[in-house]
Amino acid sequence: MQLLEQAYMHFLQALDDEMRRVVDSASFRTPDFEVMLHYPLGWVDTDGTPFHETTGKRIRPILLLLCTDAAGGDWQQALPAAASVELLHNFSLIQDDSPTRHGRPTVWKVWGRNNAINAGDAMFTLSYIALSDLTARGVSETLTIQAWRVFNQMVLELTRGQHLDMRFETQNDVSVDEYVSMISGKTSALLGACGQLGALIGSGSPATAALYADFGLNLGIAFQIHDDILGIWGDTSITGKSAATDITARKKSLPVLYGLSRSSELNSLYEKPIFEERDVEKAVALLDTIRAREYAQQQEKAYMHRALHALESAEPRPEAMKTLTALIDFLFTRMY
Amino acid sequence: MQLLEQAYMHFLQALDDEMRRVVDSASFRTPDFEVMLHYPLGWVDTDGTPFHETTGKRIRPILLLLCTDAAGGDWQQALPAAASVELLHNFSLIQDDSPTRHGRPTVWKVWGRNNAINAGDAMFTLSYIALSDLTARGVSETLTIQAWRVFNQMVLELTRGQHLDMRFETQNDVSVDEYVSMISGKTSALLGACGQLGALIGSGSPATAALYADFGLNLGIAFQIHDDILGIWGDTSITGKSAATDITARKKSLPVLYGLSRSSELNSLYEKPIFEERDVEKAVALLDTIRAREYAQQQEKAYMHRALHALESAEPRPEAMKTLTALIDFLFTRMY
Repeated sequence: MQLLEQAYMHFLQALDDEMRRVVDSASFRTPDFEVMLHYPLGWVDTDGTPFHETTGKRIRPILLLLCTDAAGGDWQQALPAAASVELLHNFSLIQDDSPTRHGRPTVWKVWGRNNAINAGDAMFTLSYIALSDLTARGVSETLTIQAWRVFNQMVLELTRGQHLDMRFETQNDVSVDEYVSMISGKTSALLGACGQLGALIGSGSPATAALYADFGLNLGIAFQIHDDILGIWGDTSITGKSAATDITARKKSLPVLYGLSRSSELNSLYEKPIFEERDVEKAVALLDTIRAREYAQQQEKAYMHRALHALESAEPRPEAMKTLTALIDFLFTRMY
Repeated sequence: MQLLEQAYMHFLQALDDEMRRVVDSASFRTPDFEVMLHYPLGWVDTDGTPFHETTGKRIRPILLLLCTDAAGGDWQQALPAAASVELLHNFSLIQDDSPTRHGRPTVWKVWGRNNAINAGDAMFTLSYIALSDLTARGVSETLTIQAWRVFNQMVLELTRGQHLDMRFETQNDVSVDEYVSMISGKTSALLGACGQLGALIGSGSPATAALYADFGLNLGIAFQIHDDILGIWGDTSITGKSAATDITARKKSLPVLYGLSRSSELNSLYEKPIFEERDVEKAVALLDTIRAREYAQQQEKAYMHRALHALESAEPRPEAMKTLTALIDFLFTRMY
């Protein structure tokens, strides 16, 4: 844990400086528009007065910088890419329709949906502006263009995952494979790109970067499944959510899809228009009977195994590997 | 006109091939998502069956290719950039909220607003994928990265213009300067980038490209003002719209803003919650009295003059210059 804290201290200020430099370099000439972009980053309040609160754990850029280090490079060279993935992450949060985030109302809640879409598009553009600054850190033009292409494919995957997620809301027969395809895009592609971009800048080798891409992608899938398990069986005192929230919300998470494919009783239950408290309990009991939790845990383990196998194949620097392991432990300690 | 038709024939098929290549190269692995992206481009119907109808005049990419030619380059090298600006234009159309376009229902009308936002984001990404292919046409890495940066700044300008346009809906005291700032972003920045990208690829010189940027930007402003005039005084038999549509819709176009800054009577009129037919007539009469039409025509002329001055300073190839002039004539012939 101490290792991880050191790494964070090391990276966080430089990352924040880089993000500010990118956003400030963009000439908006329109102060009220600038506020809409500074606000979700936690830099100002809705009226433009300075505000200082970290609005996120910055896991993605930290992972990227650690992969640069692990692949033998200088993490400072990768700062533009780290800023880029964090800005892109913020783009997807701004266009999402949650009403609050980190205890503050979201952009659309404050300024309306059309402004949120437009501010999201601007944040999207800022992520490209950040990435295009790699050459200013001495990254070669060839590698910069390669990084750009990796980034493009990742964003496209993100939109594909988002598409599937929306489609699943009304689709009755979502298979486990389809689900994994969805989370590969929606939540894991960005982590895959963090590994790939970090290692590409760190090593200059597309082959090495591909191993880190595999590491990040599978880590992301494992993490999503982990989250799915917590959403049903999580200890409420640790997760801060009420038990079985994902059942109440009828989220088609991995254990539920597994259950629906095996239990006709669960299918009938899910046809009810409204869930009462005892329906939630019954659903969990049915999932327990068919050992859906064990199934999901096995799946999580399998993806994690693939992630670590890919990482080991890349022969990371031992010091960076220790910190990466600490980061993974930290991500997965919000435990059952 | 014949010159222009030849240029169009020359460019259109190559452009369409390039756009298809880019979109097909993107691995969606999700056919129903692919349909949402092929549909607005006019390639398929909503159910995925092939459809062939040009859904737009492709003015932007044609302008870009002509500028490459004018600046002394090989237009085929610029095809990835031409595809890119057309895809970006389609991104902004998809996220716009018009219910129909070219006689077909828009993406959000068919699949709902959330799908339109997401498909728009994917189209946005495709425009970057297209642009990143410049190197495959032999454009140097240095120029490709410069083109990327030009593109980034243009998109940011586009979102700034969109922001202002939305803000103006509820803002009472929009000045003429603010209006020009808005249309510089919302409708002209993309034309500016067409000039700049085309000339950058054609000449390799950022200084020459800056002149073409100036040409495109001012041409775009002149064109928007031209459109504003048509929206009030246009000949309905030519424009296909009913007379004074922009007054009925209470659009804060240039002549109206000029009028509001000079006529208290017009201000009172615009405070009415609903416009009747005779209010529309009265508004037009007031604008005529203060010579708002002549003012707007002067402004249009001034921006057009700046555009042509910048173009001439760049010393374009005579043949390409003739075609560019024909394109401009074509754009501005939907006349009073």
